[in-house]
Amino acid sequence: MNQAHISQLEKINIPKSDLPRIVIIGGGFGGLRFVKRIDTRKYQVVLLDRYNYHTFQPLLYQVATAGLEPDSIAGPLRKTFQKKKNFFFRMASAHKIDPVEKIVETNIGELSYDHLILACGSITNFFNNEEFEQKAFPLKQLPHALNLRSQILQNFEKAVLKNDENEVQRLMNYVIVGGGPTGVEVAGALGELKKHVLPKDFPELNLNKMQIYLVEGQDRLLGGMSEKSGEKAFEYLKKFDVNLYVGKIVKSFDGETVELNDGMQIPSETLIWAAGVNGNALTGMDQKVTRDKRYQVNEFNKVEGFDEVYAIGDVASMKSEEFERGHPMLAPVAIQQAELLAKNLNKGLEKDNWKPFKYVDKGTMATVGRNKAVTEVFGKLKFGGFMAWLMWMFVHLVLIVEFRNKIVIMSNWVWNYFTYDRGTRLIIRPFVKKKYKAKKQAEEMPV
Amino acid sequence: MNQAHISQLEKINIPKSDLPRIVIIGGGFGGLRFVKRIDTRKYQVVLLDRYNYHTFQPLLYQVATAGLEPDSIAGPLRKTFQKKKNFFFRMASAHKIDPVEKIVETNIGELSYDHLILACGSITNFFNNEEFEQKAFPLKQLPHALNLRSQILQNFEKAVLKNDENEVQRLMNYVIVGGGPTGVEVAGALGELKKHVLPKDFPELNLNKMQIYLVEGQDRLLGGMSEKSGEKAFEYLKKFDVNLYVGKIVKSFDGETVELNDGMQIPSETLIWAAGVNGNALTGMDQKVTRDKRYQVNEFNKVEGFDEVYAIGDVASMKSEEFERGHPMLAPVAIQQAELLAKNLNKGLEKDNWKPFKYVDKGTMATVGRNKAVTEVFGKLKFGGFMAWLMWMFVHLVLIVEFRNKIVIMSNWVWNYFTYDRGTRLIIRPFVKKKYKAKKQAEEMPV
Repeated sequence: MNQAHISQLEKINIPKSDLPRIVIIGGGFGGLRFVKRIDTRKYQVVLLDRYNYHTFQPLLYQVATAGLEPDSIAGPLRKTFQKKKNFFFRMASAHKIDPVEKIVETNIGELSYDHLILACGSITNFFNNEEFEQKAFPLKQLPHALNLRSQILQNFEKAVLKNDENEVQRLMNYVIVGGGPTGVEVAGALGELKKHVLPKDFPELNLNKMQIYLVEGQDRLLGGMSEKSGEKAFEYLKKFDVNLYVGKIVKSFDGETVELNDGMQIPSETLIWAAGVNGNALTGMDQKVTRDKRYQVNEFNKVEGFDEVYAIGDVASMKSEEFERGHPMLAPVAIQQAELLAKNLNKGLEKDNWKPFKYVDKGTMATVGRNKAVTEVFGKLKFGGFMAWLMWMFVHLVLIVEFRNKIVIMSNWVWNYFTYDRGTRLIIRPFVKKKYKAKKQAEEMPV
Repeated sequence: MNQAHISQLEKINIPKSDLPRIVIIGGGFGGLRFVKRIDTRKYQVVLLDRYNYHTFQPLLYQVATAGLEPDSIAGPLRKTFQKKKNFFFRMASAHKIDPVEKIVETNIGELSYDHLILACGSITNFFNNEEFEQKAFPLKQLPHALNLRSQILQNFEKAVLKNDENEVQRLMNYVIVGGGPTGVEVAGALGELKKHVLPKDFPELNLNKMQIYLVEGQDRLLGGMSEKSGEKAFEYLKKFDVNLYVGKIVKSFDGETVELNDGMQIPSETLIWAAGVNGNALTGMDQKVTRDKRYQVNEFNKVEGFDEVYAIGDVASMKSEEFERGHPMLAPVAIQQAELLAKNLNKGLEKDNWKPFKYVDKGTMATVGRNKAVTEVFGKLKFGGFMAWLMWMFVHLVLIVEFRNKIVIMSNWVWNYFTYDRGTRLIIRPFVKKKYKAKKQAEEMPV
């Protein structure tokens, strides 16, 4: 190590090993799969994550809308890798890479690596608008989902106390920005709450007043899927009385009123931010970071110009003929890149044997409340409605990490389906607005 | 209303009614049962609680030790009373009673009553020691249980980072104050974590180092049960290697070291406070409040000297020949008092027809980890071990409010039993010590 490197940070305590050390930052879909596949007879493996669990992000919206317990969509990382030898987990937020000294700096100290896998995922993109960042509700992590769940339920508890019609309306209006899968799924789930659950809980309120607004800048929904899927989603959301504003942009939100770019004002206390994400690139290798905060990687997921640094998943921008602006930020991309990179590294470091990455699009899907979903398989087969919905449920159950979680989620879904009910509508930690900024910063720390 | 009464508070919005209004403060075992039984053709009924759910407190310790999801031991109050006509729930913290004007003051405004039912339960008694109040972990509400769960898991995440043996030991020492059912159950559950769960998650740590201390001021455990039950619990806890200190008192805790009255010092970051509770009496009727903060009531649960004010459950002190210091603070007492009071009020206000309260002791029980419990039925039959444990499970499943929760808890228990595992070891909101005081005050607000 270079003598010039003087660090104030303690070293993170990891047993010494003769094997080269791979450090993975982030236990999302990519990091998790990489650790599963990497051969720990050849490498010492250290996984860092700021949480001690993997979050199954596709179902976050169900936690936010009281359909699932938070615990059921999270898999404790130590448990997942209980049987992995020569593997070490450290709960830590990495914030900086020193690619020359080969060191990761974290909140609990620094850690040297021989090979670094950046799997830090993505973070909500508020487009540098501080107002949105402070006042809107993102939906990327479990604490976000719990904040939103509390907010929704607290709004209705407040609404029963109000005499002023305008105040009631403001509490019952929900504005979602972003017509991608998350926005569409949240809108559908709110539509279900409005139709089936809340009228029973709040007989004093006229639930017809509850208005759900979905605002999307492009001129259609589900931009990442086919036009037909976008139209289907549009049609399904209309059935839930969702107010759809495509080709419009949210201009401002002061905590009480959402203003669109055409001047329209929607009184609302709750702006749900599903308008996009950026890569979660850390500091220290800025010359290889794209405008959307992803690391430029080659077809082997290597960050070019740096020795033994790789990026996978959302935080990696791998350009190809098909994907001129990098591969889409989707779980299957992360998983496939992780699989291949682990396989390549398991072969050894002579890159002649390494295989380049080729994405296999197995399909995308989004669900829109009860019995409704849109699904695209192998980029061809497309179907909507009940069959797509069943398929959506099946695929998500197959994908979710823990066997135990599968049972819990399955039984929740069966329960919700037959009872038209949601089991978990509890305000366990009331959402407090004024504390939001500090708390959110803590949550949005780099992985 | 008296002209002299000038209030700054808004009135809580409840529809007008010709029927007399009963206000119940607290949705615990007593308040819940009272609302179930009261005849809403005769009264307008308003329930106040600071939470929007009922907490099944006997299982809090399982949430704290990662055995159950928080959602599974909580019942949303609005859902429980969905079919109740002429019933109104308001999420509110009451803090003061004006028994002359017949008004309850809360954080969301004031509410007038014709009949008042004080069912505010009990709060942790720190014996006016500010140090304990700020630094120890109580276990009365769901947020407490989640704080303790985070603390336990964070301690182990920290321990793997330490080189200093003393620091590691401090993180792995747990001190529980109070040898009642809560203390005994927490000690047993921690013993199980030590034996079956944590060694698999933390192979780097020597879990034999984890030490559980139970400190009890009296000279035996389970003071509320028979001596034989106390001995059984002692014997079972010994098998879990719990260090038992009876006849000793915790003198101080600075956040790093617990000191006992005999000078013994235990380095520990985690002091779990199960040393007793006080009634949660509100201000405004102080002349009828006992030293342990309960309302003195007669055999009809009426707070004497005040018109139409009743107290039930933990916050009521009803003295009798058998119970010279008031009835014990137990769920069955609260439930039976609630049943009778509702029945009496349903008969009308002529108290000649009213029946006085007579407690039927159906038994008490405590569980000590896997396969072990002590049970006393009808004050006579006593048994320990596996049969008692099965009975403990059965009784708790029968008692818990929601049908759905029964299924969730049952399946969790079956899972935990056969896999020797705990499903929910997630640090969802990391416990932050420095914020603790403010947060705890918010949580400990009167119901």
